[in-house]
Amino acid sequence: MAAADAATDAYRRAVATYPREKLKSIAMQGADGTPTMFVDVIVEDAIIDAATAAGVNVLSEERGWVDVGSAVTLVVDPVDGSANAAAGVPLACFSAAVAIDGEFTEAMTTWLHTDERWWASRELSPYTTSGCRTVADAALSMLRPHQRNWDAWTRVAQTATRIRILSCSTLDAVLVATGAVDAFVDAGSDTHRLMDIAAAVVLVGASGGVVLDAFGRPVEFDTDLTRRWSGIVAATPELGEELRTLIAEAP
Amino acid sequence: MAAADAATDAYRRAVATYPREKLKSIAMQGADGTPTMFVDVIVEDAIIDAATAAGVNVLSEERGWVDVGSAVTLVVDPVDGSANAAAGVPLACFSAAVAIDGEFTEAMTTWLHTDERWWASRELSPYTTSGCRTVADAALSMLRPHQRNWDAWTRVAQTATRIRILSCSTLDAVLVATGAVDAFVDAGSDTHRLMDIAAAVVLVGASGGVVLDAFGRPVEFDTDLTRRWSGIVAATPELGEELRTLIAEAP
Repeated sequence: MAAADAATDAYRRAVATYPREKLKSIAMQGADGTPTMFVDVIVEDAIIDAATAAGVNVLSEERGWVDVGSAVTLVVDPVDGSANAAAGVPLACFSAAVAIDGEFTEAMTTWLHTDERWWASRELSPYTTSGCRTVADAALSMLRPHQRNWDAWTRVAQTATRIRILSCSTLDAVLVATGAVDAFVDAGSDTHRLMDIAAAVVLVGASGGVVLDAFGRPVEFDTDLTRRWSGIVAATPELGEELRTLIAEAP
Repeated sequence: MAAADAATDAYRRAVATYPREKLKSIAMQGADGTPTMFVDVIVEDAIIDAATAAGVNVLSEERGWVDVGSAVTLVVDPVDGSANAAAGVPLACFSAAVAIDGEFTEAMTTWLHTDERWWASRELSPYTTSGCRTVADAALSMLRPHQRNWDAWTRVAQTATRIRILSCSTLDAVLVATGAVDAFVDAGSDTHRLMDIAAAVVLVGASGGVVLDAFGRPVEFDTDLTRRWSGIVAATPELGEELRTLIAEAP
């Protein structure tokens, strides 16, 4: 996909060219209302050029909705894990999902450090989740805890057999699709934006798993970039539901 | 280094040849008293062959101390992050430190997934730590929490600005040496064996940082593989000392 090639090239040029302080610096206020790092702007501009040249709309966290009047929209996170990328932790991804008339149909995530790529369509995935059904048997990836969800985060972490915090949601979702990790969760901090979990809907959904929201909101295409979710990306519906209950319902 | 080449080759052959369940299976009881995964045994045997052919002793977690009567000992972790490696999370390293008459003189860690390598000697490192001096300003990598150290773990996690759990101690230490992460800590669970932190003593020590133990025990060469540490690998002595206090002294 031309957009992924453009993303990898731009990321590598940026990391090779600019010092860390510059990559981390705040370049602009994003369309989603949060500050945007310089590294994001560089990569995203490359993607928007590639995608709009191909005649599709782009929905991205920094520039917002770039509408060229197509039924097809590319929902992109140019650099997911930008704090990792800016610091020099080699876990950051380009991630994109295609929405046709509002339905996610295919998705691809690229690990920018190695250029490894994972692709699936709604009907076809080369991957299979682990099949894990209970939290007590699960190795989880978790979004890092915040003060506002410390209790729910602790409840989930203490129930699972093992936790990791990789700080790259789209890579976490890939690991659920391939069966390396049993689930990835935002334990109720409402940090996820659509582009953090859009690719998971296809990649994990077509591999045997589910994408839920901890508070029951539908994970759906929406051009309103102020929406947030607490995404649960799980190997099976049963595991997703148990995680949802653990997070949303205090003991 | 021949041992690192042997490790990378053996790891790649093992991951390509065997299914996950076989890699995870317990092949033997290790010399350190813990069960040993099949993936460790395969890689370690390749390293011992390479090192003893070069005439040096080897101290490794599974086979123990292989003494060929040399003043030089290679302290190796053939696959650090073996749970990651066996599950398919691409964060696992070969790590080795050279001890001459009991003093660590050089070290190298290899990321097995990419074959990237980081080397330093006690006198010379190409890396510089972040220089971070206080926990409140620090992005930390942490060993995952255990029931026995949950309170200390929480205290550290709540004080830092950001935490990650990568589940690969030797890669975590590399990230401290390069300045990508400010510190890596086992918050008092006494999980670290010598081979988990031996390379850090050289790589981080020569890059401006320190390696401490949360409970003040010296991190030193020892052929007694039952010893454990709660390693603190920090960008500066000040940061290491503040972390030590947070972990060891209840509020």
